[in-house]
Amino acid sequence: MRFIDLNADLGEGFGDYRITDDSALMSIISSANIACGFHAGDAVIMAASVAKAKERGIDLGAHVGFPDLSGFGRRRMQIETATLAQYVIYQLGALAGFARVADYPLTHMSFHGALGNMAAEDEALAMPLLRAVQSFDPRLIVSTTAGNAIERCARVLGMPVACTLLADRAYHRDGMLVSRAKPGAVIHSPEQITARIRQWLTDGTLTSIEGVAIPMPISSILLHGDTEGAVALAKQIRQEIENTPGCEIRSISRQRAANV
Amino acid sequence: MRFIDLNADLGEGFGDYRITDDSALMSIISSANIACGFHAGDAVIMAASVAKAKERGIDLGAHVGFPDLSGFGRRRMQIETATLAQYVIYQLGALAGFARVADYPLTHMSFHGALGNMAAEDEALAMPLLRAVQSFDPRLIVSTTAGNAIERCARVLGMPVACTLLADRAYHRDGMLVSRAKPGAVIHSPEQITARIRQWLTDGTLTSIEGVAIPMPISSILLHGDTEGAVALAKQIRQEIENTPGCEIRSISRQRAANV
Amino acid sequence: MRFIDLNADLGEGFGDYRITDDSALMSIISSANIACGFHAGDAVIMAASVAKAKERGIDLGAHVGFPDLSGFGRRRMQIETATLAQYVIYQLGALAGFARVADYPLTHMSFHGALGNMAAEDEALAMPLLRAVQSFDPRLIVSTTAGNAIERCARVLGMPVACTLLADRAYHRDGMLVSRAKPGAVIHSPEQITARIRQWLTDGTLTSIEGVAIPMPISSILLHGDTEGAVALAKQIRQEIENTPGCEIRSISRQRAANV
Amino acid sequence: MRFIDLNADLGEGFGDYRITDDSALMSIISSANIACGFHAGDAVIMAASVAKAKERGIDLGAHVGFPDLSGFGRRRMQIETATLAQYVIYQLGALAGFARVADYPLTHMSFHGALGNMAAEDEALAMPLLRAVQSFDPRLIVSTTAGNAIERCARVLGMPVACTLLADRAYHRDGMLVSRAKPGAVIHSPEQITARIRQWLTDGTLTSIEGVAIPMPISSILLHGDTEGAVALAKQIRQEIENTPGCEIRSISRQRAANV
Repeated sequence: MRFIDLNADLGEGFGDYRITDDSALMSIISSANIACGFHAGDAVIMAASVAKAKERGIDLGAHVGFPDLSGFGRRRMQIETATLAQYVIYQLGALAGFARVADYPLTHMSFHGALGNMAAEDEALAMPLLRAVQSFDPRLIVSTTAGNAIERCARVLGMPVACTLLADRAYHRDGMLVSRAKPGAVIHSPEQITARIRQWLTDGTLTSIEGVAIPMPISSILLHGDTEGAVALAKQIRQEIENTPGCEIRSISRQRAANV
Repeated sequence: MRFIDLNADLGEGFGDYRITDDSALMSIISSANIACGFHAGDAVIMAASVAKAKERGIDLGAHVGFPDLSGFGRRRMQIETATLAQYVIYQLGALAGFARVADYPLTHMSFHGALGNMAAEDEALAMPLLRAVQSFDPRLIVSTTAGNAIERCARVLGMPVACTLLADRAYHRDGMLVSRAKPGAVIHSPEQITARIRQWLTDGTLTSIEGVAIPMPISSILLHGDTEGAVALAKQIRQEIENTPGCEIRSISRQRAANV
Repeated sequence: MRFIDLNADLGEGFGDYRITDDSALMSIISSANIACGFHAGDAVIMAASVAKAKERGIDLGAHVGFPDLSGFGRRRMQIETATLAQYVIYQLGALAGFARVADYPLTHMSFHGALGNMAAEDEALAMPLLRAVQSFDPRLIVSTTAGNAIERCARVLGMPVACTLLADRAYHRDGMLVSRAKPGAVIHSPEQITARIRQWLTDGTLTSIEGVAIPMPISSILLHGDTEGAVALAKQIRQEIENTPGCEIRSISRQRAANV
Repeated sequence: MRFIDLNADLGEGFGDYRITDDSALMSIISSANIACGFHAGDAVIMAASVAKAKERGIDLGAHVGFPDLSGFGRRRMQIETATLAQYVIYQLGALAGFARVADYPLTHMSFHGALGNMAAEDEALAMPLLRAVQSFDPRLIVSTTAGNAIERCARVLGMPVACTLLADRAYHRDGMLVSRAKPGAVIHSPEQITARIRQWLTDGTLTSIEGVAIPMPISSILLHGDTEGAVALAKQIRQEIENTPGCEIRSISRQRAANV
């Protein structure tokens, strides 16, 4: 049996603003990564997201980012690492507060946007941020793309890690993401995206941008919620998995529980 | 033996800004009420405040307020009660995150500024906000002035309550605070403030603005940190207590632990 | 010839967030009221809004509100009047900066949300805020619903005033808006709204909620941009006016220029 | 006659927070650079700063920075240049609004903190930001340290420029600032700082960190307001100038007016 988690970044509104169709996506995915009020999200949205995650029985994670609502956390900021570590704890704590009130567990965390990119490139940043996560809760699963500094540091620290496939992004033959700056980095065609998922479901490989099939040891697929046709594509991917014999959608925490 | 807690609102800076001399006050008080990033405070200051509270072994509480940094939480805002309840949980959660990382308990909470004033006047507001606190952690002690809607609702909900004396404020004979709008409401003279504390330490009474000595069933004294000469006055009050035979400074949580 | 202005509140996004379809509305209206970064809007959106207004040749106004992005300026805040007056100037100045760079005139202003409601009810608030507007630019036209404190104070101060009809709201026989709290206050049917506009175009009257036709001395109609079907309704209203012989859509500043 | 301007960065508080003793500094300097609400400052403080500048008859300038109150604008942010240009206009416009209400001219501008450092290093950033300033008001004097990208671009654009000496910083023999990271970059001794000013007043030179006297073609000295003893040092420097025969404190705009 091959298990795969479907996750999405949700709760990315603020006040009256909304970006993603959270209700629709919540009924498709098995894990939600919730914005914690720094790059997006607020108390009302976080509480509603936790309630929906509990209602649907899916994994609940914190999606932590830079304190930059006007830039949606996508702009790099040169902030002292010790300060960033406190920002991470603040965000984890705030979401954990809603989880506690809902009596529903926080299972994982991931880094958003520019903070995620910077940590992925730099162990000197990733290590102290992950230590902060670990000091908050050593059981939190770190969700990240494979092969970057975040994954390496999390493994060094002995933290649980889940590697996620960005379904709409091209990969190099060494398993690293193709930079967005390069042509072909982002795959826009839903058919192509679904075909890639199908290939992975069949033999665990993905065809790299160089044309070589490479093994992809992932346990999760990240669905984007903020693009045109996101919900339709998410549904299609879910269907693809459900239609594949021997494959089953299962959240990371349940995959782990099953393995124990 | 008469026990009394000394508490102060701390961590009220933001970024590079500071208002109170937290280090000096931390060495005088037995309980700290820490701003949680809405009316004041930020992740770095909160982490430092928790560390100092742990180092000094004093009680650690959350001071929750309106999301209004530019008004320091002193301006009334007409926010839906359900939304406010989520704001309270967000703030409690954020501070609890730092407490968790420091492995030091969060013992109490209080409402700041305009939010505190509004809740003190209105059970329809106080009740749902306190329910939010209780749903977060039923052991959190609610710190408030005596006789208001917050105290009444907390008692109805069966929550632990600690009544605090505002050392520099006049009281009516019914035990209620004299409105700041009235002459004589705020006592500016350090000598007068110390004399009032002395009276309370001697026989548990305070002289009301009407000139009548009234019983004051409090377990804590609130010291203001943001006024001229705050630290000197705080030291003087501490000395007054230490010099009174049969009196001892003890935080609320320790007073309760002793009673159990 | 009967002239009528069509105006809408635009530029109400923030960062990546958007609420209204500004491009579509800009091609229908004759005046735009632009959010200035307090309750909504930011520098990028303001610059783009000014550019679009200039491109379309429509009136450009400032829509000023409370500093409350998370509440979209719809929550009442008890802020000192002198402070609010400075908030108004800050917002006017910021938008005027973009107008200056675009070499396009700022023609009018209006108050948004809770700030508008509070000023509409209270001359003690409306008067100093309007004095602030006047001290910034005495030629700015004050756009407001008829008969409230804002209109009265603006007239006392000798400021140019334009009264606006809220097309989807019911009015009492004395010309005042029916409170949103009352049934029938908001008219949801596009047909009904269009019929009301038709009546006004025909004889300058509107039927009050009490069933009496009352004269409506307005020079503008406010179209909402943030509701379902807003653009379609706006188009329909525009068509209605264009199809009425003797009626013409003309911005307030052009109506005034024609009268001089 | 040698003229020199004394300027300082003021209005750097927010809400109830204050950093510098603005009133004391305002009575010493000839030009004030006012924070505009992004890295520091708010509408109330800006209005008060403009009023004080007018009362004292000193030059009024805009000090524009990153939208990062929690980092005081000292943290680098990777923001699109076109967006930054709009941020600059927003800030200039907001301050110009208060200047307009006070009927007092805005004379100059400078970049704050990390934004200033990034623009000083990179013409590709400095040029579009200065174009934005120029499009807002071509008469605004650009205040900057000599020899950097800001000065070069301003000269290319034909903008008025005023070069400022950082009194407490060491310079290299080529006239460039010594990086803060290097030992000796910051001069802490008031005596040494005053001696350096005295040397400049005498012969227009400064001794570089390499020990060579270099010509310093500056028209202004920047006094820091946020350090211990700032006011006392500022007074001393003012006295030094007043006691030097043939030297006079005169704001940049007056120096220029005299030259025309």
